[in-house]
Amino acid sequence: MRIGYLQFTPEFGEVARNLERVALALEGADADLLVLPELFASGYQFRSREELLELAEPPDGPTAEALIRVAARGGFHLAAGFPERDGDRAYNSAMLVGPQGRVGVYRKTHLFDAETEIFEPGDSGFQVFAVGEARVGLMVCWDWIFPESARTLALQGAEVIAHTANLVLPWCQSCMPARCIENRVFAVTANRCGEERRVGDGLRFTGQSVIVSPRGETLARGPEQGEALEVVETDLALARDKKPTARNDLFGDRRPEMYRLG
Amino acid sequence: MRIGYLQFTPEFGEVARNLERVALALEGADADLLVLPELFASGYQFRSREELLELAEPPDGPTAEALIRVAARGGFHLAAGFPERDGDRAYNSAMLVGPQGRVGVYRKTHLFDAETEIFEPGDSGFQVFAVGEARVGLMVCWDWIFPESARTLALQGAEVIAHTANLVLPWCQSCMPARCIENRVFAVTANRCGEERRVGDGLRFTGQSVIVSPRGETLARGPEQGEALEVVETDLALARDKKPTARNDLFGDRRPEMYRLG
Repeated sequence: MRIGYLQFTPEFGEVARNLERVALALEGADADLLVLPELFASGYQFRSREELLELAEPPDGPTAEALIRVAARGGFHLAAGFPERDGDRAYNSAMLVGPQGRVGVYRKTHLFDAETEIFEPGDSGFQVFAVGEARVGLMVCWDWIFPESARTLALQGAEVIAHTANLVLPWCQSCMPARCIENRVFAVTANRCGEERRVGDGLRFTGQSVIVSPRGETLARGPEQGEALEVVETDLALARDKKPTARNDLFGDRRPEMYRLG
Repeated sequence: MRIGYLQFTPEFGEVARNLERVALALEGADADLLVLPELFASGYQFRSREELLELAEPPDGPTAEALIRVAARGGFHLAAGFPERDGDRAYNSAMLVGPQGRVGVYRKTHLFDAETEIFEPGDSGFQVFAVGEARVGLMVCWDWIFPESARTLALQGAEVIAHTANLVLPWCQSCMPARCIENRVFAVTANRCGEERRVGDGLRFTGQSVIVSPRGETLARGPEQGEALEVVETDLALARDKKPTARNDLFGDRRPEMYRLG
């Protein structure tokens, strides 16, 4: 299975133009699954809940339509972040689309910092979907720091975690090997790069998108700044084998009765 | 609080001699808590359950007595691994002792590889104990790969994780920053070094004991081979502050109702 990311810098609020730029960047990409950043077409720093609601879309809005066209043309699946509108509420969501249409939507469980002021905490629960023979789980940015997120996805059968991100803290990229080793899964963290200076001191996004194997190897790593498309060939058998030794099984050896995780 | 490790290579089965060597190595150590490796006085590769039972001790056996003497002389606490005998069963345990005596015992929850043939799976549950003003949680070697272990300790209030280890796989040391970042705790991984060639092809232990801060900084790292004592000064306030941003709390923001961890 060929999995990859597009590291990308949107222009805030210029949804149509950002969608065009992504379509162009993905022309000719040879992949089965490509991951785009969190809120890749809208931008990140909304000045108010009103501004967010104006840019937010339903799961069958223009962003979904554009992504499905790109997926159909390229013959691949896309996982991508978008601001999801549901009545007068908005979620920080990720959708998975394929050549035949939308596969599913996940609403970010753990909101980061100022997001808590304008987005609703996600209520979808963690989702795993089929992409060909593979099972793909969705996770959005800050979800990564809670080990329960990737764990829940992996225990539900995810072999690949599609992680859309807008990272500003320094930790995630160096911790994704731990997420992959402890769950024996592949992960694609598609981060954005560039800056936004719309609120307060603004934000600088850290780039360095990463693809990590179930053995914790970093298979690809993007630049700190600058857009980049990377695809790697992976062997899903690695993610299906949960046995790091002949006598250990990372899932079978779990002892939930000994954990206190309430 | 001054926390540290003694990276050490025991001679298999020479318990009294190993205890003397540890006492000597810790003479004059200036610390509040020192962590020794897993099974630090017995050695690791037991040829049979019978051999293990011969070397296993109750929690008030000679190993405990020797450790308490060292702790009393040095005025510090010690966390250390030992084979614990309970009737005709044996556990891969860690004990915490201080100048006043034994504080507690933890029985390893997740057994590694050949350990499953001779040890019983631990039934103590994860334990957190007071060391002065600090709360210290115990974890033994392979427990690290299950994020539930450190999580359970941290949710029970552990500010420092004392991790006794006999590591042979390449992952733990590079993943401990993730354990510390996700839980905002300090961790001391005391690994052994050297080789044992008593069973099969033998085992080579990987050294590189590490002390990691709640921000994921590696504060000390031992050599790959060779014994080493390291102590670092830490500020427990870092482990008590679970807020990586003004609006986030790593424990308060958890959403157990969204996790599927059974």
